[in-house]
Amino acid sequence: MRSPIDDEIRDIFDRCAAIGEGQVATYISELATADPSAYGLCVMSVEGHCYAYGAVDVPFTIQSISKIFAYALALETRGFDAVDALIDVEPSGEAFNELSPDSRTRRPRNPMINAGAITASSLLPGEGPEQQVAALLSCLGSFVDHPLEIDERVYASEAATGHRNRAIAHLLRSVDVIGGDPMAAVDVYFRQCSILVTARDLALLAATLANGGVQHSTGRLLVSRAVLRRVLSVMASCGMYDGAGHWMTEVGLPAKSGFSGGILAVLPSQFGVASYAPPLNEHGNSVRGVAAFRSLSERYGSHLFEPRVGRLHTVRHRTRDAEDPGTVRYALQGDLDVAGTESVLWQLMTEPTGTRRVVIDLTATDRISGHAGELLAEMSRRYLVDGRTLEFVDPQELLVGAPDVARLL
Amino acid sequence: MRSPIDDEIRDIFDRCAAIGEGQVATYISELATADPSAYGLCVMSVEGHCYAYGAVDVPFTIQSISKIFAYALALETRGFDAVDALIDVEPSGEAFNELSPDSRTRRPRNPMINAGAITASSLLPGEGPEQQVAALLSCLGSFVDHPLEIDERVYASEAATGHRNRAIAHLLRSVDVIGGDPMAAVDVYFRQCSILVTARDLALLAATLANGGVQHSTGRLLVSRAVLRRVLSVMASCGMYDGAGHWMTEVGLPAKSGFSGGILAVLPSQFGVASYAPPLNEHGNSVRGVAAFRSLSERYGSHLFEPRVGRLHTVRHRTRDAEDPGTVRYALQGDLDVAGTESVLWQLMTEPTGTRRVVIDLTATDRISGHAGELLAEMSRRYLVDGRTLEFVDPQELLVGAPDVARLL
Amino acid sequence: MRSPIDDEIRDIFDRCAAIGEGQVATYISELATADPSAYGLCVMSVEGHCYAYGAVDVPFTIQSISKIFAYALALETRGFDAVDALIDVEPSGEAFNELSPDSRTRRPRNPMINAGAITASSLLPGEGPEQQVAALLSCLGSFVDHPLEIDERVYASEAATGHRNRAIAHLLRSVDVIGGDPMAAVDVYFRQCSILVTARDLALLAATLANGGVQHSTGRLLVSRAVLRRVLSVMASCGMYDGAGHWMTEVGLPAKSGFSGGILAVLPSQFGVASYAPPLNEHGNSVRGVAAFRSLSERYGSHLFEPRVGRLHTVRHRTRDAEDPGTVRYALQGDLDVAGTESVLWQLMTEPTGTRRVVIDLTATDRISGHAGELLAEMSRRYLVDGRTLEFVDPQELLVGAPDVARLL
Amino acid sequence: MRSPIDDEIRDIFDRCAAIGEGQVATYISELATADPSAYGLCVMSVEGHCYAYGAVDVPFTIQSISKIFAYALALETRGFDAVDALIDVEPSGEAFNELSPDSRTRRPRNPMINAGAITASSLLPGEGPEQQVAALLSCLGSFVDHPLEIDERVYASEAATGHRNRAIAHLLRSVDVIGGDPMAAVDVYFRQCSILVTARDLALLAATLANGGVQHSTGRLLVSRAVLRRVLSVMASCGMYDGAGHWMTEVGLPAKSGFSGGILAVLPSQFGVASYAPPLNEHGNSVRGVAAFRSLSERYGSHLFEPRVGRLHTVRHRTRDAEDPGTVRYALQGDLDVAGTESVLWQLMTEPTGTRRVVIDLTATDRISGHAGELLAEMSRRYLVDGRTLEFVDPQELLVGAPDVARLL
Repeated sequence: MRSPIDDEIRDIFDRCAAIGEGQVATYISELATADPSAYGLCVMSVEGHCYAYGAVDVPFTIQSISKIFAYALALETRGFDAVDALIDVEPSGEAFNELSPDSRTRRPRNPMINAGAITASSLLPGEGPEQQVAALLSCLGSFVDHPLEIDERVYASEAATGHRNRAIAHLLRSVDVIGGDPMAAVDVYFRQCSILVTARDLALLAATLANGGVQHSTGRLLVSRAVLRRVLSVMASCGMYDGAGHWMTEVGLPAKSGFSGGILAVLPSQFGVASYAPPLNEHGNSVRGVAAFRSLSERYGSHLFEPRVGRLHTVRHRTRDAEDPGTVRYALQGDLDVAGTESVLWQLMTEPTGTRRVVIDLTATDRISGHAGELLAEMSRRYLVDGRTLEFVDPQELLVGAPDVARLL
Repeated sequence: MRSPIDDEIRDIFDRCAAIGEGQVATYISELATADPSAYGLCVMSVEGHCYAYGAVDVPFTIQSISKIFAYALALETRGFDAVDALIDVEPSGEAFNELSPDSRTRRPRNPMINAGAITASSLLPGEGPEQQVAALLSCLGSFVDHPLEIDERVYASEAATGHRNRAIAHLLRSVDVIGGDPMAAVDVYFRQCSILVTARDLALLAATLANGGVQHSTGRLLVSRAVLRRVLSVMASCGMYDGAGHWMTEVGLPAKSGFSGGILAVLPSQFGVASYAPPLNEHGNSVRGVAAFRSLSERYGSHLFEPRVGRLHTVRHRTRDAEDPGTVRYALQGDLDVAGTESVLWQLMTEPTGTRRVVIDLTATDRISGHAGELLAEMSRRYLVDGRTLEFVDPQELLVGAPDVARLL
Repeated sequence: MRSPIDDEIRDIFDRCAAIGEGQVATYISELATADPSAYGLCVMSVEGHCYAYGAVDVPFTIQSISKIFAYALALETRGFDAVDALIDVEPSGEAFNELSPDSRTRRPRNPMINAGAITASSLLPGEGPEQQVAALLSCLGSFVDHPLEIDERVYASEAATGHRNRAIAHLLRSVDVIGGDPMAAVDVYFRQCSILVTARDLALLAATLANGGVQHSTGRLLVSRAVLRRVLSVMASCGMYDGAGHWMTEVGLPAKSGFSGGILAVLPSQFGVASYAPPLNEHGNSVRGVAAFRSLSERYGSHLFEPRVGRLHTVRHRTRDAEDPGTVRYALQGDLDVAGTESVLWQLMTEPTGTRRVVIDLTATDRISGHAGELLAEMSRRYLVDGRTLEFVDPQELLVGAPDVARLL
Repeated sequence: MRSPIDDEIRDIFDRCAAIGEGQVATYISELATADPSAYGLCVMSVEGHCYAYGAVDVPFTIQSISKIFAYALALETRGFDAVDALIDVEPSGEAFNELSPDSRTRRPRNPMINAGAITASSLLPGEGPEQQVAALLSCLGSFVDHPLEIDERVYASEAATGHRNRAIAHLLRSVDVIGGDPMAAVDVYFRQCSILVTARDLALLAATLANGGVQHSTGRLLVSRAVLRRVLSVMASCGMYDGAGHWMTEVGLPAKSGFSGGILAVLPSQFGVASYAPPLNEHGNSVRGVAAFRSLSERYGSHLFEPRVGRLHTVRHRTRDAEDPGTVRYALQGDLDVAGTESVLWQLMTEPTGTRRVVIDLTATDRISGHAGELLAEMSRRYLVDGRTLEFVDPQELLVGAPDVARLL
């Protein structure tokens, strides 16, 4: 017996396998040798369930997908101020290899174009390229829970032909965005692009981002909250080269693609998804990959801005106690997110004066987010001042930590 | 008694009132006469609860915020193919008044820069500027549930000085992106920018977008699902001029600002929020408005990519029937979104062979999204083939419409 | 009996007639109807000798060639300061229809690109388009010594399709480079481009420029010295669209071409030359025209920078008087230009002290330029102070006007 | 006794010495140490007369002025086709350090911007930087007739800070405009810019160019005709950075300036002129230098396009022989340039039929250029066919080499 979800994804996988368009990247000779028919798709839930199809264990070089992790690591180790002073976060509307800092005083437009990525590479922790690359390898290894390696042939090939990236590094040096030896920064960049991964690895990387930065199997928090929010934001606006706008309208997920044919996307709190298929479209994004993501997004309505008409009423029932008419009970449901909390508070505000006691039953509440607890506590205090009572039935102990809340049970 | 949320927002409002930076827009003379101290903030929940502070009922011209509604109306009436053939959806990395189509064969980069917006204006339904503007006024009137008007003095001022926009219209005409008389298109644009709104109106416009396109008080669906998804996507990537990337990283909500000092943002399924404060920063976005939105986003964790560590387990309890060991009960909770459905299916797949019957209790399930019902029905069929039984306790009738599902109760 | 020069030019004309490449301009529909086989070449000496081949009397619209005369007329009537404040004189490295003033504060790069030309049109003398065009027609009529007319169909066609030029005019208006109604300026421009001329007319226009601004047959000075110098300079650096550098290296003459297929070039003090052949190369210059000019320049060594090895010795003979050894005679030859005058003065300076008297014989001197007369007079005075004598044999009265010069004869 | 020309130039020199504006270049630290008050001016006639004022023997690094000689040497040794395939000749309208080849397939716009100059450096003859620089040093040494050296401290300073030039070299390498190691090409460029010269040296370099490529004192031809024409053309359109158009309109001479404060200009067949004064204007051209050249050009009317009204009549007298009415005598004067020859031929064509014999007296003719001899010979043949006679009085033997010409005397 197979899961119907498994069948559906396989069906999408199979239909996209038929797409023959696109060109394997040739800008470095080793990439040109990629098998154009290679094709893998891997969906990994935040609980670690894995749906894998085709060439999910074929290693290929990570290329530009490394940019998000180098940026994240630079942010974690140098801090936002130091990194933001050197790399902006605006979509560039330009090609990935644009000579971004050309207007002489400006930072690279964002960390996803080469200029910004090389700058991020220069900010990795460690002394010299060896240590810096080792730091990134170690970081990525924690995501996939096994050691990763560099493809020395691809690295040699990148190093032999990467004149444009060297030009960019010299330009960055000329405006002091990169300090020290610009060739060291570009060397780190060439190496990080040559890290070998599989589609399964990428899905695990994405799933960890989807899971709030916590690696599912090890339980380790690998990305801090602020860095993760930043990285997903940048992926959303700049991750898909100059096809970012189309991706956002059609797929609607934070993502990053690489010239070797990989794409990784994040459906927050739900899934990490990755594809591998070398032939690229004119924007440098994998043709079969884009098609598969578009189908998945459509099939599962997972676009960030998929409209939800109506909203679950947080207060499922409001009932006046038959025996004690001064008491009202609220049975809550769903999340106590901002809107949910606001909705409860609004109703509490508008209770008729005859209501002297409200009992809020959190038994069916899923989660409370932000500072809902504090707000309810504060409301409780105000009820008290008003000579009324606010009590909670909280079998899940969701309000633990919210002081001064009267809990029943 | 006031709601603590009310207090919190007022506190944010008050703190931002102290910000004295920014310059009132002067590019058209009538805008320059705006009161730099005018300041209003309005938060409107999808249920229609309204939190209003300061000058929320002061009328001002909508300016660029009109672009999203003109674009939406063009999409609704002309269809995606016709509009997409003329206006792209990529962030431009350029100023709002960039001569976007200059590379002679290309469409405007997106509908939020002037070139794209004027093109959208030319595609509004109706014969001639009068009818086209009337159509947009009628559309916007449906959102705010009262008639809107044009500020004739601002319109006259725009018309007198809008040479650059006329240049853009002629350029668009020269590459056949605009057909007919380009001066008619720019006239529509000048008029639509001169529509008078209040911050309360903008909050209502935003709340309707947040509510899946349904106007709360009238219950009318004003934006179709596909258009709404598109419009929110474009707002997310291009809505805040060339400060879009910073907005996305710091506030993280689809939004649109205008040169008269308004900003409108959408927190899907929860709130529409709007601010009004004429002094602008160097990107043309209201200084106090940006500050207020940043504080709100931080206070309530409402950034689109606010990480959520861990995920509610959709299967809250799995219990083997004490009396009938072949029967297992799943008590579900939360949303049956893709990941939730997947999680349930995964557990059903991995039930030991001794399990002959599974009863899924949907009593505490909030909502089911997408085609979760179909997937559960299909799983039910497969269980049957396997000689097992899958049954549902569905007091909310969430599975109505999913055929062939055995429902208990 | 025909002149061998006539034969040579005809030979060049015939060989270039065989060239079948190029495309007739289509950007306005009336130009597209031009006969691609039409071809004329006309060489006019500053003395008025005319060598004409092929379609030299076929009328066509002057198009961009009008730019140099509108610029000249604006300079003559408004003065350098007023015009230079609005139009720069730098080569743009850009296409003719570049939106030059886009960087918002800058003047059009030069008067040969459309932006600069439309600005020049706005500066023509007269109130309103009618008068301004009449002024230019009158000016051009003085060059060719007969009235010129506008092709109303081409004008109508330009007006119907000139959206890009209208865009440019609005942009210029938006940065106050054009004052008043930008549509009036562009209307003047459309009309001036539609003035009908023949290749013979163009050759006469060019010959007048070659002749120091003096129309050969009427003897009228039509361009002042400073304006002529300016106009030829601008033609040299910006006259041939973005093929200006190639033209300068290969042909080496100030020139201007138009999209209708005309080219006009100036060989100062010698010839005006014009060609007409509609098919254009990728730079918008007439293919047969460019080829003919290249051949003429090569055949006659008329490139501005054609090297001349060695220099005519201005002092042809220096002879000591056999009877009066204190007297030395200089027989001069050629032009007394700067270098010639310097050479004479240098020898006068280095005369041995035994030389008490120098007689300079100007009989064979062609012309004296600049202030050679003053310099010789000053030298004469210094000789006197030194107790020596400087006398001149000046049968052509070249030194008339140079005071205090002792003239023999 | 001093020459009045000497006095005049000194006066111009003195007046420009008072100009205190401009900034010494700081882009490499060694240049910043230049004495801002250093100032020299040197005028050298093609006959070798030298007028020198101020710091004409102070050595400074040649900087960008080296570009014209490296380009010339590349053309001489590689040929036009090879060089033109890699370096275009169009004015760029851009800054000197523009990343010219950025549009990925294109050659540098011209050899005067850094991108073109570095390409030219890569094409110098020799194996490796040492030999290539030695070749250029040897070439320049032949112009100034003494050995030149490199300023090792400036070279070291350029090498330490020239990140932007390295970026340009890598870009050129990335599009295969430079082959081999781009760092070798940029090293040659850094060294050539560090060659030490004086203003007197520059004047001699310019005078040699003015003298048709022949070094005055050694009599050696150092630049071939075609290369010299090319080099002067490129100097005229691109020699003065992005101030080329202003220089052409105001000074009107082929020239080249460098960031160390030198300017060199060529008045063909007359003078080479050079100035040295480190403070630069916003275009990177020496402020006092530009002022001095402008004054010199104005004072001596040496602008290339200085209008000459009227033209010397080549046929000074035409007289019918009193004794033999069938004979007519032409007394010529001035140059037999194209126009002069044409003028003579035209009159020969229009002789009345009664004229049976024409005697052309070349005694007072200065020079004949191009193929005037051949044309006269051909005319002579046609007269013969017509039964008439054409004879020449040619005491200077100007027609030697023109076959079949009947010479009297």
